[in-house]
Amino acid sequence: MDTVKYLLADDALPTHWYNLQADLPEALPAVLHPATGKPIAESDLTPLFAKALIDQEFSRERWIEIPDAVRSILLQWRCTPLYRARRLEQVLDTPAKIFYKYEGVSPSGSHKPNTAVPQAYYNQAEGIRKIATETGAGQWGSSLAMACQIFGLECLVYMVKVSYNQKPYRRALMEAYGGQCIASPSDTTDSGRAILSKDPDCTGSLGIAISEAVEVAAKNPDTRYCLGSVLNHVMLHQTIIGLEAQSQMQMAGDYPDVIVGCTGGGSNYAGICFPFLGEQLRGGKKVRLLAVEPAACPTLTKGPLAYDYGDTAKLTPLVKMHTLGSGFVPAGFHSGGLRYHGMAPMVSHVVGCGYSDARAINQLECFSAGLTFARAEGILPAPEATHAVAGAVQEALRCKAEGRSETILFNLCGHGHFDMQAYMDYQAGKLVDYAYPEAEIAMALAGLPQV
Amino acid sequence: MDTVKYLLADDALPTHWYNLQADLPEALPAVLHPATGKPIAESDLTPLFAKALIDQEFSRERWIEIPDAVRSILLQWRCTPLYRARRLEQVLDTPAKIFYKYEGVSPSGSHKPNTAVPQAYYNQAEGIRKIATETGAGQWGSSLAMACQIFGLECLVYMVKVSYNQKPYRRALMEAYGGQCIASPSDTTDSGRAILSKDPDCTGSLGIAISEAVEVAAKNPDTRYCLGSVLNHVMLHQTIIGLEAQSQMQMAGDYPDVIVGCTGGGSNYAGICFPFLGEQLRGGKKVRLLAVEPAACPTLTKGPLAYDYGDTAKLTPLVKMHTLGSGFVPAGFHSGGLRYHGMAPMVSHVVGCGYSDARAINQLECFSAGLTFARAEGILPAPEATHAVAGAVQEALRCKAEGRSETILFNLCGHGHFDMQAYMDYQAGKLVDYAYPEAEIAMALAGLPQV
Repeated sequence: MDTVKYLLADDALPTHWYNLQADLPEALPAVLHPATGKPIAESDLTPLFAKALIDQEFSRERWIEIPDAVRSILLQWRCTPLYRARRLEQVLDTPAKIFYKYEGVSPSGSHKPNTAVPQAYYNQAEGIRKIATETGAGQWGSSLAMACQIFGLECLVYMVKVSYNQKPYRRALMEAYGGQCIASPSDTTDSGRAILSKDPDCTGSLGIAISEAVEVAAKNPDTRYCLGSVLNHVMLHQTIIGLEAQSQMQMAGDYPDVIVGCTGGGSNYAGICFPFLGEQLRGGKKVRLLAVEPAACPTLTKGPLAYDYGDTAKLTPLVKMHTLGSGFVPAGFHSGGLRYHGMAPMVSHVVGCGYSDARAINQLECFSAGLTFARAEGILPAPEATHAVAGAVQEALRCKAEGRSETILFNLCGHGHFDMQAYMDYQAGKLVDYAYPEAEIAMALAGLPQV
Repeated sequence: MDTVKYLLADDALPTHWYNLQADLPEALPAVLHPATGKPIAESDLTPLFAKALIDQEFSRERWIEIPDAVRSILLQWRCTPLYRARRLEQVLDTPAKIFYKYEGVSPSGSHKPNTAVPQAYYNQAEGIRKIATETGAGQWGSSLAMACQIFGLECLVYMVKVSYNQKPYRRALMEAYGGQCIASPSDTTDSGRAILSKDPDCTGSLGIAISEAVEVAAKNPDTRYCLGSVLNHVMLHQTIIGLEAQSQMQMAGDYPDVIVGCTGGGSNYAGICFPFLGEQLRGGKKVRLLAVEPAACPTLTKGPLAYDYGDTAKLTPLVKMHTLGSGFVPAGFHSGGLRYHGMAPMVSHVVGCGYSDARAINQLECFSAGLTFARAEGILPAPEATHAVAGAVQEALRCKAEGRSETILFNLCGHGHFDMQAYMDYQAGKLVDYAYPEAEIAMALAGLPQV
């Protein structure tokens, strides 16, 4: 069965990111100051973020130029390939056509460098010396460490302790790139110490690690904070995925009926979906979007759309998003990543406005789909990416049941070479499904801030 | 610093492999039957190998067509990129120009699928149902498991026990692709049982694992044996690397003065070097070739060019090669791969005829060069590949000392995402240098067969 690949030349690398805010009929809800509850000003964020990134966060310009220095770095592995999954279609015996965009060809093996590189670039351009950030399984931390090394910045990564201990290899990659990695909660910050004093055995969460990194940036004038998902400017940087995919679908002489992305903070989903949604909003063809999240962290499908903090220590501004509450700590035996308590405000807004469906899938189904994909297509997906694979497989089987030949596009956001333990556990029958219980969700949500 | 990348379109994928045997002024020494000591006939090999592969093993045709079904699979990740390592040049402050061919973009992360795919293809085409092979760290086993899955073949991999236990993740990748992986020496074969009865704690070697796989193939009519390096037809399949690199150097308007490859069995070195050497032998530009091997397994630099067995149980034909003796077992604390006791006859011949230099480098220098490369270029090399990096760095520093602006090309044969433990050990100061002692070499060589 022939490989069907759509490859773009270097000069097809997008020159501008696409900003969905320009085309949304309903504007994003305001971001609120955590102390006053009033909308924040851009200047409130300057202790934390590079100015250029704050501008992008609030911009409603449709197209924002990608600096040449950023494009030059991205060109090392971009444009990434788009494939038709012919062998998978055959295995599923589906009349659907399945396309996937493959972001695992980046040096760190995921889509995260798409935003790590511009974030490091803008910070260096503004004279910053050091970056603090958080990471869960480590896709983001390793990508940022790489980007910081390229631009000569120090990189300090707070890594969720359970991952720090269970997954030393992404940490090793950060250290190989010259980054410094600290298990969170740690005794290096007030927020970390506060949590450890209450619970010395706390295994951490993204919300806690964000608190620590934000605190370091807020207290050190030469340091800024970077986030690997959630924020508008991160969604913006990831649109390079969907923009390339648009050109590649055109090469294929086809257009997606449905686009599937997995969602943790939302950035790879936004990256592939937003340029197509923008087309639709500007009068182009309608496309069904599908966000797939783990049943163990069902932010979009079980969490309300509400104002909440981005972190556990409540240091960040309040943003309106689908959330399970900033105190949410995902179950330790969930192996599939995508563990953030909230969801990007832009993704939450898109789902809230009815432009996208959302679906939670259990991890066993995801790993099974990941293996089916690997055996058909050769590429072993990251556990996060198996959620998108599982969603695409569900859609392909629906097409089969309905006898419809729809075109399905999904984002394969990273390879699974760092995640073999999860596949071993799955193949050994050690993984179980875990749906986050309704009662616990209700309890966590009772703690949402009153706005 | 701009990324400088040379990317070929799909239609530039080579249509033929290049066979160096056509251009060698001195023919390869004959392969001898292990029982008779007389040159073997092709028919002696038919119980072990697919017929098409045996034909290629003995062929002196210059160009051998790549089947369309093979090219179609290879196109999933080929043509692979060639880069100019501008940031590395800057770090080294060298007047040399450094280019590298990057094979880590394949689904299994190394150059091994270049031969796994055609080997699986030919076996399936000849009605074989099952493949037996061996693997060391697992690059080859995982690549063959992937290729077998694509062509619907069963895949049985004997994995050197020390790696099986210390490096479960490549094994997990084989299993993800549906392959079966057995620690060698095992009790599933006569040769495995013979070794275990003498030494129940034997941690294995490639030579032992080859014995087991060869035995399984010899005893089962529906099973054939595949080898991931050493043999002429494997060198042939890997020439796709150098053929692409020739086109890419032409795009760059440059030509290498020196080409560096790391050598274990010799296939990735042969892959990048042989097409350029062929040019030279046909009257083209002279190029200096440099094979880099680990000081812990100094086959080319310390082993004589002699007839020896390919495996420990002495089941294979006798081939003339640089060898440390088929009883050689590399030191367990060597982390850099490239542990085979012998060397591809073609590579041995090329070195023996004076067409290539060879150099042994200690593992600490290799890991150090690997980190320097990762921090400059973003890509973390596999430990094997760090030998080529270290060789290229030595050449670049020589150019600096001599004030010469030579063009250096090396083969970055795989990424290090499966090898983070080795990098962690290196960064923690746990690795030591180990030069295989002269006395042990002399003892091992005393056991070479009398031919």
